[in-house]
Amino acid sequence: MPAISEKGIAMPESPIRKLVPYAEKAYAAKKTVYHLNIGQPDIKTPHAAMEAVTMHSLDVLAYTRSDGSEGYRNKIASYYQKNTIEVTSKDIIVTTGGSEALLFAMGCIADQGDEIIIPEPFYANYNGFATASGVTVVPVQSKIENNFALPPISEFEQLITPKTKAILICNPGNPTGYLYTKDEINQLADLVKKHDLFIVADEVYREFVYDGHQHYSIMAKNGLDQHAIMIDSVSKRYSMCGARIGCLVSKNKEVMATAMKFAQARLSPPTFAQIAAEAALLTPDSYFTEVNQEYVSRRNTLIKGLKSIKGVRVGIPNGAFYCVAELPVDNAEEFAKWLLESYDYKNETIMVAPAQGFYSTPNTGLNQIRIAYVLNEDSLRKSVEILRHALEEYNK
Amino acid sequence: MPAISEKGIAMPESPIRKLVPYAEKAYAAKKTVYHLNIGQPDIKTPHAAMEAVTMHSLDVLAYTRSDGSEGYRNKIASYYQKNTIEVTSKDIIVTTGGSEALLFAMGCIADQGDEIIIPEPFYANYNGFATASGVTVVPVQSKIENNFALPPISEFEQLITPKTKAILICNPGNPTGYLYTKDEINQLADLVKKHDLFIVADEVYREFVYDGHQHYSIMAKNGLDQHAIMIDSVSKRYSMCGARIGCLVSKNKEVMATAMKFAQARLSPPTFAQIAAEAALLTPDSYFTEVNQEYVSRRNTLIKGLKSIKGVRVGIPNGAFYCVAELPVDNAEEFAKWLLESYDYKNETIMVAPAQGFYSTPNTGLNQIRIAYVLNEDSLRKSVEILRHALEEYNK
Repeated sequence: MPAISEKGIAMPESPIRKLVPYAEKAYAAKKTVYHLNIGQPDIKTPHAAMEAVTMHSLDVLAYTRSDGSEGYRNKIASYYQKNTIEVTSKDIIVTTGGSEALLFAMGCIADQGDEIIIPEPFYANYNGFATASGVTVVPVQSKIENNFALPPISEFEQLITPKTKAILICNPGNPTGYLYTKDEINQLADLVKKHDLFIVADEVYREFVYDGHQHYSIMAKNGLDQHAIMIDSVSKRYSMCGARIGCLVSKNKEVMATAMKFAQARLSPPTFAQIAAEAALLTPDSYFTEVNQEYVSRRNTLIKGLKSIKGVRVGIPNGAFYCVAELPVDNAEEFAKWLLESYDYKNETIMVAPAQGFYSTPNTGLNQIRIAYVLNEDSLRKSVEILRHALEEYNK
Repeated sequence: MPAISEKGIAMPESPIRKLVPYAEKAYAAKKTVYHLNIGQPDIKTPHAAMEAVTMHSLDVLAYTRSDGSEGYRNKIASYYQKNTIEVTSKDIIVTTGGSEALLFAMGCIADQGDEIIIPEPFYANYNGFATASGVTVVPVQSKIENNFALPPISEFEQLITPKTKAILICNPGNPTGYLYTKDEINQLADLVKKHDLFIVADEVYREFVYDGHQHYSIMAKNGLDQHAIMIDSVSKRYSMCGARIGCLVSKNKEVMATAMKFAQARLSPPTFAQIAAEAALLTPDSYFTEVNQEYVSRRNTLIKGLKSIKGVRVGIPNGAFYCVAELPVDNAEEFAKWLLESYDYKNETIMVAPAQGFYSTPNTGLNQIRIAYVLNEDSLRKSVEILRHALEEYNK
């Protein structure tokens, strides 16, 4: 039997899906499971996006351009311009989700064995894309005690080697919900200019920013045109995760010409999804206002609830719709499995994502979980009560 | 300015799109351009597929499973069973086009510097996926004089090294239109068993087989379960290139478990496109009968026309909708540029794909072009006349 590649063996299993077999046991036992484990929002996709697809009048479902349809790219450019990001359609390549944009970015800037520094905990699939691309992830640790703020720049500098090609950030962050300040973005900008690195910023949660805070995009920073690569996606913004439409944005022409070669090899992003995404851009600002109000209420309910549980520590997220909580258990993965397999509170239980998979440093975040507050407030309140009782029971 | 990766620099430019700037000059000069250069069929997408999408009643455009929706995978399995391929939904991972299936396959079976042997000329984007995956393509040459049949097995064996992981074939072939015989498939099966290699078969043109010939799938071959990986796609089959739905099929459980890790990292294939693809599977066989009759007529018109031009040599394709023709010119790429930039016949010209980009061996196929017969017969007749007059003029 021919052997699987070492790369294939090294590909990490998704920490979000790792518990699925345990969830299936919970379903089999007829328990209600509250899914706090995955960032699939329950928010309705804007009607305009869904309708555009029902109204299509195509005879042949043809390829679009490899960099995405011209009309859609122009509209994305306008959206960014409205958001203080001065780009044109030439600076944008439409991708199959933010996932593909990340793969293209890694392919453009790093060779086998090259290093990318990422503050951890980070979006777990960065590990997968790095492994697939032959890139080594070098983690720098952010801490729950200061809300997962940017680690000191000196810690990044200690990790820079001749193989370091880029810093990768997620802003606002999945799984932490942390929103980088203007000062932190400036520090990162100085760092990458000093060491001639790329900065890749995953800004897919840019619209989910709360409490009057402001999002500072890496693309809005002056003097960073040759360094900055932004990853974006409509998945979370318009609750259309299944569209699989994202984009890669950069003013570095060499990066764009190179990314275009990767884009051409896979022909084009999906056509129907581009129709939906283009229509979604007509969504009025009031949609985000309402959605953000909803997320703020959910966050407040969740965080207040979590803080009321003895031994639970949690930061206050200013963006996205996740938080990382520290639990009074030794191994949160075992606890998460137990929640599904062996526990119920009034025949209900919760599914959470063990945070360990969001760290690259071994044996880190073992007592932490990620919670996605993508459920309504009532479900979140119930989930907190389940967690409270479960911890009492588990720690007896 | 930070440097682009070596991999990015090595990524080949698509030979199909290389001539686009020259085509733009032809458009600017108000010439009519017949596009023989790209495999975008003009055939209508089955109505059922398009309608299924207009009829959708989703509120939230959510992720599907990473391996594709259960319903769709079951229906694909039934389609294969009808085509003498005994697989279940567990042997299928739905991908974003055949492109992604190829990337997953390479990721599963080959590490940096590993080798995959491919009969050339081959689908040009194999080069791109190989470069992106760090894989070395080792070409074995098939010849126009015997219709691009499988090269002798001894030539494959001479190229096998400890780094060889797989043989990759396209059957029926793009760009050659060659359909492998049962005997050739058997020879390949023996070869990969003898040397413990994978065989990856790109069978996206499986339905386009002419003149009463039969398609022999690598998946229908006994004793090859641990070796065979099939790449498929709905793009050409149902003229829905823009859906971006393909699949990876294998009965090797280790391959499937590994491919699933790549699939989970990128979350899911596009949802709308899966709805369309699932509905497309209801397409009656009469659709293919009609479509194939159309392609056979086109092929006959084209090949007869090409053979009537002095100095042109062409094989007779038994499948797909391409042929490779040898022209009485030294450099077909220069000629193709000239056709767009400097030539017209009654204000019309043709765009063809220089075949050089379909070879991996340097300076090979320089006097060959690939023609996609995706235009109606009248346009093909006109295209042949343009080529005839252009060659006379060019060789004056």
